[in-house]
Amino acid sequence: MTDKNIILTGDRPTGPLHLGHFVGSLENRVRLQDENEQFIMIADAQALTDHADRPEVVRENVLNVMMDYLAVGIDPTKSTIFIQSCLPELFELTVYYLNLITINRLKHNPTVKAEITQKNFGDATPAGFVMYPISQAADITAFKANLVPVGEDQLPMIEQTSEVVRKFNRTYKCDVLVEPKALIPKIARLPGIDGSAKMSKTLNNAIFLSDPLNVLEKKVKRMYTDPDHLRVEDPGKVEGNPVFTYLDAFDPNKEKVQELKDHYQRGGLGDSVVKKYLLEVLVSFMEPIWKKREELDQDKVQSLLKEGTEKARNVASQTLKEVKEAMHLNYFS
Amino acid sequence: MTDKNIILTGDRPTGPLHLGHFVGSLENRVRLQDENEQFIMIADAQALTDHADRPEVVRENVLNVMMDYLAVGIDPTKSTIFIQSCLPELFELTVYYLNLITINRLKHNPTVKAEITQKNFGDATPAGFVMYPISQAADITAFKANLVPVGEDQLPMIEQTSEVVRKFNRTYKCDVLVEPKALIPKIARLPGIDGSAKMSKTLNNAIFLSDPLNVLEKKVKRMYTDPDHLRVEDPGKVEGNPVFTYLDAFDPNKEKVQELKDHYQRGGLGDSVVKKYLLEVLVSFMEPIWKKREELDQDKVQSLLKEGTEKARNVASQTLKEVKEAMHLNYFS
Repeated sequence: MTDKNIILTGDRPTGPLHLGHFVGSLENRVRLQDENEQFIMIADAQALTDHADRPEVVRENVLNVMMDYLAVGIDPTKSTIFIQSCLPELFELTVYYLNLITINRLKHNPTVKAEITQKNFGDATPAGFVMYPISQAADITAFKANLVPVGEDQLPMIEQTSEVVRKFNRTYKCDVLVEPKALIPKIARLPGIDGSAKMSKTLNNAIFLSDPLNVLEKKVKRMYTDPDHLRVEDPGKVEGNPVFTYLDAFDPNKEKVQELKDHYQRGGLGDSVVKKYLLEVLVSFMEPIWKKREELDQDKVQSLLKEGTEKARNVASQTLKEVKEAMHLNYFS
Repeated sequence: MTDKNIILTGDRPTGPLHLGHFVGSLENRVRLQDENEQFIMIADAQALTDHADRPEVVRENVLNVMMDYLAVGIDPTKSTIFIQSCLPELFELTVYYLNLITINRLKHNPTVKAEITQKNFGDATPAGFVMYPISQAADITAFKANLVPVGEDQLPMIEQTSEVVRKFNRTYKCDVLVEPKALIPKIARLPGIDGSAKMSKTLNNAIFLSDPLNVLEKKVKRMYTDPDHLRVEDPGKVEGNPVFTYLDAFDPNKEKVQELKDHYQRGGLGDSVVKKYLLEVLVSFMEPIWKKREELDQDKVQSLLKEGTEKARNVASQTLKEVKEAMHLNYFS
């Protein structure tokens, strides 16, 4: 036993990762991996809950996401990166936990309800999608994770896991499972380059961590700014202006950013000048990522994924053993 | 490939098996095992969908059910008997299939709806219980079973499996899964010794295959007959009289049974005389079962269960491999 916190985190591999992921989670993971036992799950099985008919998209992005991880500095000797579908233990836990939670409770999970509305599932909501909080409970508890980094909107998911943990330990008179705590990151959401509240592949407003220089240039050029800032000499707004939000997020030179903001608000600073500076900042940010990505070869990435997956499976398999013992399901041991 | 039909059948281990099971399914299995490839599942995981808080009951009855199987003549060299919870493949299939079926479709499964009412679950229906038709689809398809012996009331379950099969093969453009057909047994339900329509442990009206002679004697003695047959000389009714239904089911001497029926209906034949004869018939039926049971030792039963489970797991694991290949989930193969 170690005194380290155990963290479970991860992503659905439905597209390559972007700057929003970096600010919202990847940056934290790079920091957290030094002091904690961190498991990072590429949640392909969870991605299939609403991509059942597009498995090739999920498959392709498992590798994309892994390369993004490595490129931003997640270190596979410090963090255990694994593929969800390669751990049968997670599926077994899911099915057993489903017996402990009522169907009504699941239907009223606020996060799932909001997502069902957002995805316009209507009457065609896949049963697997309604269940996915329980699948998350399996993922978290399989590693006995006590910390799970999530956004505020995901708090009901952590609560659902805690409920499963309490119900399981009470029903089977044991303390096998561990209640997790949410770790809510301080940094707010990164807006899209079109100025909308959230950067997202689906909204087509993302700068991907895998974008090459020429794409980055184009995307910065077409960024939304203050629509009322028509002439250079006019005063401009920095609030809700994603160019300045990105500078706040990515420029280590805070003084310089403040100067630019003041100048922009006074008037006399053109959008194209600020964008040119932002491009420089983003290029400095991206350069080490591009470099690391170039060093990665497919075989190495595959073998790192395989190692991480095996390591994760050993941990999950030990937990499942304890779970099944508590449930009297240890026939041949 | 073989031309044999593949059969999947089994029982929830929530109690020892009784004469009703023999007439309704065990007798057929003994017959079917010669000409077919028969898999018999002890459905402990399914039993937990409504026994989550009584795992020790399930555990204990896994062994009871196995001993009942062997005692009635199910031959482990012909039929593959296995424990459901020991096949992680079934859980994986369940979770993937849940993505292919809507939650609305599951809620409207007539068999599940009827059982929810019957079990008085109300608002506390476990999510796992609502899902169990999908878990059954996993069980059936894992063995590519094309025949599933079920009662009429279970037909919607087979239809649900067929729906999963068609949806899977269509979505993943393959023919990995096989649509099953229902095999509806001719023989009607055996009534309980109290005369109620169904023999059942819960109703406390069952003669168990493991009942010893003295218990059998007591149960036959307290059997319900025609309540209006007060004096020996009165004419009695044979319809709805379980003593005669049992004679129909268990006495190979059909002529003798007809004579007794005629005599009873004319009057002049006492209940105690018919019961004495029924006891003889049941003792003849039970004798080879008692004998076989005596020959079984715990270690042998355990090792037979283990062998069957390993054999079944190999088959399920091959199917899962094909399923995951069709879903592009073959990362390290």
